[in-house]
Amino acid sequence: MAYSAEKLKEEKVFKDPVHRYIHVRDRVIWDLIGTKEFQRLRRIKQLGTTYLTFHGAEHSRLNHSLGVYEIVRRIIDDVFKGRPEWDEGERLLSLCAALLHDLGHGPFSHSFEKVFDLDHEHFTREIVVGNTEVNTVLKRVGEDFPKKVADVIAKTYQNKLVVSLISSQIDADRMDYLQRDAYFTGVSYGHFDMERILRVMRPREDQVVIKQSGMHAVEDYIMSRYQMYWQVYFHPVTRSAEVILTKILHRAKHLYETGYKFQQEPVHFYSMLTGNMSVSEYLKLDEAIMFYYFQIWEEEEDAILRDLCRRFVNRNLFKYVEFHPSNDQMNKLMELNKLFRKAAINPDYYLVVDSSSDLPYDFYRPGEEEERLPIHLLKKDGDIRELSRESEIVDAISGKRRTDHKLYFPEDLLWDDSAKKNIKKQIRRLLELE
Amino acid sequence: MAYSAEKLKEEKVFKDPVHRYIHVRDRVIWDLIGTKEFQRLRRIKQLGTTYLTFHGAEHSRLNHSLGVYEIVRRIIDDVFKGRPEWDEGERLLSLCAALLHDLGHGPFSHSFEKVFDLDHEHFTREIVVGNTEVNTVLKRVGEDFPKKVADVIAKTYQNKLVVSLISSQIDADRMDYLQRDAYFTGVSYGHFDMERILRVMRPREDQVVIKQSGMHAVEDYIMSRYQMYWQVYFHPVTRSAEVILTKILHRAKHLYETGYKFQQEPVHFYSMLTGNMSVSEYLKLDEAIMFYYFQIWEEEEDAILRDLCRRFVNRNLFKYVEFHPSNDQMNKLMELNKLFRKAAINPDYYLVVDSSSDLPYDFYRPGEEEERLPIHLLKKDGDIRELSRESEIVDAISGKRRTDHKLYFPEDLLWDDSAKKNIKKQIRRLLELE
Amino acid sequence: MAYSAEKLKEEKVFKDPVHRYIHVRDRVIWDLIGTKEFQRLRRIKQLGTTYLTFHGAEHSRLNHSLGVYEIVRRIIDDVFKGRPEWDEGERLLSLCAALLHDLGHGPFSHSFEKVFDLDHEHFTREIVVGNTEVNTVLKRVGEDFPKKVADVIAKTYQNKLVVSLISSQIDADRMDYLQRDAYFTGVSYGHFDMERILRVMRPREDQVVIKQSGMHAVEDYIMSRYQMYWQVYFHPVTRSAEVILTKILHRAKHLYETGYKFQQEPVHFYSMLTGNMSVSEYLKLDEAIMFYYFQIWEEEEDAILRDLCRRFVNRNLFKYVEFHPSNDQMNKLMELNKLFRKAAINPDYYLVVDSSSDLPYDFYRPGEEEERLPIHLLKKDGDIRELSRESEIVDAISGKRRTDHKLYFPEDLLWDDSAKKNIKKQIRRLLELE
Amino acid sequence: MAYSAEKLKEEKVFKDPVHRYIHVRDRVIWDLIGTKEFQRLRRIKQLGTTYLTFHGAEHSRLNHSLGVYEIVRRIIDDVFKGRPEWDEGERLLSLCAALLHDLGHGPFSHSFEKVFDLDHEHFTREIVVGNTEVNTVLKRVGEDFPKKVADVIAKTYQNKLVVSLISSQIDADRMDYLQRDAYFTGVSYGHFDMERILRVMRPREDQVVIKQSGMHAVEDYIMSRYQMYWQVYFHPVTRSAEVILTKILHRAKHLYETGYKFQQEPVHFYSMLTGNMSVSEYLKLDEAIMFYYFQIWEEEEDAILRDLCRRFVNRNLFKYVEFHPSNDQMNKLMELNKLFRKAAINPDYYLVVDSSSDLPYDFYRPGEEEERLPIHLLKKDGDIRELSRESEIVDAISGKRRTDHKLYFPEDLLWDDSAKKNIKKQIRRLLELE
Repeated sequence: MAYSAEKLKEEKVFKDPVHRYIHVRDRVIWDLIGTKEFQRLRRIKQLGTTYLTFHGAEHSRLNHSLGVYEIVRRIIDDVFKGRPEWDEGERLLSLCAALLHDLGHGPFSHSFEKVFDLDHEHFTREIVVGNTEVNTVLKRVGEDFPKKVADVIAKTYQNKLVVSLISSQIDADRMDYLQRDAYFTGVSYGHFDMERILRVMRPREDQVVIKQSGMHAVEDYIMSRYQMYWQVYFHPVTRSAEVILTKILHRAKHLYETGYKFQQEPVHFYSMLTGNMSVSEYLKLDEAIMFYYFQIWEEEEDAILRDLCRRFVNRNLFKYVEFHPSNDQMNKLMELNKLFRKAAINPDYYLVVDSSSDLPYDFYRPGEEEERLPIHLLKKDGDIRELSRESEIVDAISGKRRTDHKLYFPEDLLWDDSAKKNIKKQIRRLLELE
Repeated sequence: MAYSAEKLKEEKVFKDPVHRYIHVRDRVIWDLIGTKEFQRLRRIKQLGTTYLTFHGAEHSRLNHSLGVYEIVRRIIDDVFKGRPEWDEGERLLSLCAALLHDLGHGPFSHSFEKVFDLDHEHFTREIVVGNTEVNTVLKRVGEDFPKKVADVIAKTYQNKLVVSLISSQIDADRMDYLQRDAYFTGVSYGHFDMERILRVMRPREDQVVIKQSGMHAVEDYIMSRYQMYWQVYFHPVTRSAEVILTKILHRAKHLYETGYKFQQEPVHFYSMLTGNMSVSEYLKLDEAIMFYYFQIWEEEEDAILRDLCRRFVNRNLFKYVEFHPSNDQMNKLMELNKLFRKAAINPDYYLVVDSSSDLPYDFYRPGEEEERLPIHLLKKDGDIRELSRESEIVDAISGKRRTDHKLYFPEDLLWDDSAKKNIKKQIRRLLELE
Repeated sequence: MAYSAEKLKEEKVFKDPVHRYIHVRDRVIWDLIGTKEFQRLRRIKQLGTTYLTFHGAEHSRLNHSLGVYEIVRRIIDDVFKGRPEWDEGERLLSLCAALLHDLGHGPFSHSFEKVFDLDHEHFTREIVVGNTEVNTVLKRVGEDFPKKVADVIAKTYQNKLVVSLISSQIDADRMDYLQRDAYFTGVSYGHFDMERILRVMRPREDQVVIKQSGMHAVEDYIMSRYQMYWQVYFHPVTRSAEVILTKILHRAKHLYETGYKFQQEPVHFYSMLTGNMSVSEYLKLDEAIMFYYFQIWEEEEDAILRDLCRRFVNRNLFKYVEFHPSNDQMNKLMELNKLFRKAAINPDYYLVVDSSSDLPYDFYRPGEEEERLPIHLLKKDGDIRELSRESEIVDAISGKRRTDHKLYFPEDLLWDDSAKKNIKKQIRRLLELE
Repeated sequence: MAYSAEKLKEEKVFKDPVHRYIHVRDRVIWDLIGTKEFQRLRRIKQLGTTYLTFHGAEHSRLNHSLGVYEIVRRIIDDVFKGRPEWDEGERLLSLCAALLHDLGHGPFSHSFEKVFDLDHEHFTREIVVGNTEVNTVLKRVGEDFPKKVADVIAKTYQNKLVVSLISSQIDADRMDYLQRDAYFTGVSYGHFDMERILRVMRPREDQVVIKQSGMHAVEDYIMSRYQMYWQVYFHPVTRSAEVILTKILHRAKHLYETGYKFQQEPVHFYSMLTGNMSVSEYLKLDEAIMFYYFQIWEEEEDAILRDLCRRFVNRNLFKYVEFHPSNDQMNKLMELNKLFRKAAINPDYYLVVDSSSDLPYDFYRPGEEEERLPIHLLKKDGDIRELSRESEIVDAISGKRRTDHKLYFPEDLLWDDSAKKNIKKQIRRLLELE
């Protein structure tokens, strides 16, 4: 029997708190789960630094990846199967792409990518097509199968219906993470009727569409998404940890570039610092390794690196105040910058503006949403209409970008009775801390 | 105002998926949560290797510790408060002991303690009374307060009512972990009506008792506990990972003791290997550090250490068969031992009997249960009766120890077409693999 | 001890699927629950005919009334207590008003009130101040206490803070029913973080306000409300049952007024039909009594009454098509009217336009919302701002009334092979059934 | 196409709070749901008088019947389908029997059957094979199909595998009601992992068996069942309402038999009282009709009937004390009997011993369990073993019948300051009320 058609003798199941069970019958999927590149995702948290705000959010990307796979499996096997618009020959490809779509994520991706100019999507492709266990499994299906999987994940695959299963404004990726992140953080947002949405999904030539009768479930999903972004993903405490983490990486990079002598050579970082990182080096990076370095750096000679690492590891975070980028506030920021320098607190690391921004829904896809397809409804008469033209509530919020700016700083350093007493008093007044 | 009586200006809450919210008003509790020793518990999983079986079980001991604190807080503030048998002066002590009761746990405690003859309870005491941030906070309450906290955790404190809140057969520790572990694994066991149990708890001189009317809720709790032990805690796949982990540590110890030259010095292990570990060294150990070493050891020269680490990190676990320690089976085990040696698979590391054993409930406390008080019911007439004398279902299972033995081995090594073909065939037959 | 201050020797609890437990300590509350007027609410469904669409929605108004009481109790005892803006002297009054706010509801209130020009709020007052067991209990608190309770429910009580607890756009009434109706129907809408909302409620002179930090939870509540209205309360199948029920009552009224001789005298309806109904007669009406008559009427001589009752009792409902009140459609409706008459299907009973309309949120309170206060946020600096000025998402939907019209008819009567064959064919074409 | 094979054009779903959705594709099932005999189950509560203890337990037998159907559907379509031991030709029969198994239940069956010597199983058969809408639908499948359905429900059908789906110690009936009753009452018992149990069910010649690997899930189910019986089904307050209801029926029967002249003829009861009830008369009985009579009887001349009806309708229940049928207690009961007569409180109606008894599990099936098959496990080697031989915990409780006796009486009548003052004091002492 062709490897691609091989079934396990007995279905395997993983107990999953969100979907109850993850079901695996395909040998290919089973083998992919067993690869070391996939298992590595256990050592990368799904929500980065969020666990420092919501202590339950300690779940890994492996957790989420299994969930996305399960949702795609249900769409295909329970809803699409047998419909003329669906090509069953794309089934295995869709499942593999779903399972592997986050494979290239590194530790605390957000900060790393910013500081070292990395791109997890690039590494996902490299792992899928490179010399890895994942690639070996995929190649057994067909010589060009790894490339196809990479193309689906990169959204360049020609069958856009397959792409839309994992990359659209209502794809399996988002449906899993909203529910999963809600479950692990324990927040009451993030609930929507996924079972209903799955039941009303229909395959069309270039995308998944939603039967009109499921419009309200989709509205609910969009509202959940909105709440999760502002209540969880952009939580100011999480962003504080993120700011510190980013500054740790900046400092390490700066020290390396200025010839600083580390007590223990940070070998895991070298190729990253030189901008020349191989897949095998990349795969060694996970959050355990990061914490090893952060712990060691808690004893480094450089005071800034030492302090920032201690803050991150021991959760002694920066405080924040609201910040609106008006002229007034920009002037105040420059004034604070000067005062921080006078107080011998390096503002490059200790005075940080962080901004979060989100569009709850849009149909013309600007910015981050660029490659996410809008949602289309399938009307009773067969017509297809973009969601915001049918839903008054979605229309009302469509295109309304919301942005939030905060100014982060270490409040504990602003109170000590040092020689800088008066300067710190000035700083505290400007920050309205007293 | 005395530090012990200080309240936060505004109550702080942590969103918790199990108890909805953790509420903190006491300054002391807030300060303890902020210590680096408490924050370290984020880097130690509550359920050790269980996440390799139940992928959701990635929650940390910090998570659980907050939960135990919250349960004790509710018992005291919502149920005991104002009752003559309860001394409000013990409130803060009880809360601190609840929060800190797991402070001395190291990474993968079970395996570490076995191999290196460590004792997490010893380290809990050392951290509480030693030179730590936790100690500094506790000492602000009173000079002897750290010792009192340590005594409650060690169950030697003279007020046994306080002790029983966190150490009995129905204490806050167990009530939290059963529910929490059920939540994160996603299993349907582990549910019981905690709110009802809390409502019927009553303080008595030397222990918490349960009003007779809550007996059925307690029965349900005991059944939950039974199911969680056999379905989750003793799951054979989890034990397989545990076996491998233990063998890694054994091997590393053996290599160290026989003068092996590691490619990178395992400095974090030295004092453990020499049996002379300080608290500050102990506190540096967490699961991130362990994974750093396991990753490095994946490339070690020693084939056994290398192989075991790869298995653990990439979840390539041992298989198992049932094993009953009868004469027949012991003979078979010895035979297998010989065959493994002949096949050049060191049986000291690759052929392991693992046993799990549990008493669902007992009133005379043998073995592990030694220090756990039995459960007492408070009857309407004021009499107090041990649970199994009132509950037929508890009586039926009381004292019934259940034990499970399994024999673990690396099945993948038993199939290759090497020179040892015939020996391996013999092994496979003895293990009934074919 | 004054009756108003009497506490039960031991707290009573009712197991509640939504709030876990309903807690009762006050003797007055306990006694009110035991009155026959309150117990009568067990025989009136909370959601009228909704159980014919969502089979789980069989819960009664007693169920909901206990829930509203419990929410108000938590707000007062857990959040307001001890705050200077809260007058503890209003506690019992608030609890009684919460418990009794729906006391005057009759069976299938919506239809009854429309057909017989009744007003449940009028009857609530009459029951509270009239010669009833509820009144006897309340009078033991104080001679003017029943009137005060009635005033709070009627929103005329001078302390508007007390009124707002049960009548505002985010009151205990709505918070209970959204969650309760979601629970019993099983829909996934209706979830919001009530515990968080309760924690951020603050008493102010003339209303409850919400701390700014709880704004997102309130947004979520408003979205839940929106979904519940359109997914559950206005479900077209429920409205079909409602239409039939209304027509049954219309027909019975018409028959009575035209001197029809019923096989069994509908004594329970007489005073209603003559528009002169006493409280004691009103209290005898419940849904069991209605079903007794509907069952008897299934055998009445009048064909319309008989048919409609059979439809309602056996759930043989009307079908519907979309209807927009344009000129075209109005003409079509008139045409249908004529055709129905020709086909000997009385359009007064068998061709019905039903409209539902809702405002998701508004601050200027038109229509049904007239007496519902808008939601106010309490900012950090003490300022109070109306919600839609702070929340972009609420602002986006604020004031957007949505209306839905449907045309109901008995499809089964339009297909039979009778003499009216051609007329029915015409009707079916106009209704686009073929 | 044969009617039996007809599918709906589009699958119909009912939102169900327990199973999320009930799925219907078969035309036969859809038509059966629409019959008036099935719709009548909406007017009969699943748990009789339990709603007077647990206010959420207002759900109907229709609710439960849909659930049983859905479970059987899943077993057949998701687990049995394609297995050689399963005859797909029995599918529709199994679904119909599941849906209709409770069809013959009357209002408050338990009390009615006791007093009037009725048998709901008899009426189920009569409705299925008699002149009813249900029969008409079933006959369209085949002339002998109604009889087959009746046989499956009566457990006399020759294919015992089909019978065991709805009648064994782990059938769809029980699995639905345990979960459903837990959901609507809100208790935390009643949870077990049904999805897991379904997955490990296997068809065998004469029954459903459970794969050994699902043993723990089955243990959990048995414990849930035990808790539900003692916490919910046998709750003493529910039994108090049941006692009063039974006494109402007894009294009405007695009055009828002694020629009492009712103010309104209880026509619905006549054939029941004469022991000669037709199916069509039986079908008119539902709980709405009962409440109509109870309300009317609240004003009857007979003081006992009047009082008991008021108690039942207004939930003014009997109190209870423990009662053990020892010689001592029997003597006390006789003494109380005499004293009640002296106090002019008729003990035939006002002094009632009620007993509940249950076997948590048994393999030899005595008493009520007579026709319930024990549970069999399918071992890896194909052997089949009775559950209690494999499970220590089930063995421990197997065959342990538990019985509870209570003595019920109207406490409120024992306190008034009447001429019987001293006698009542004696009664109160004997009952240990003071």
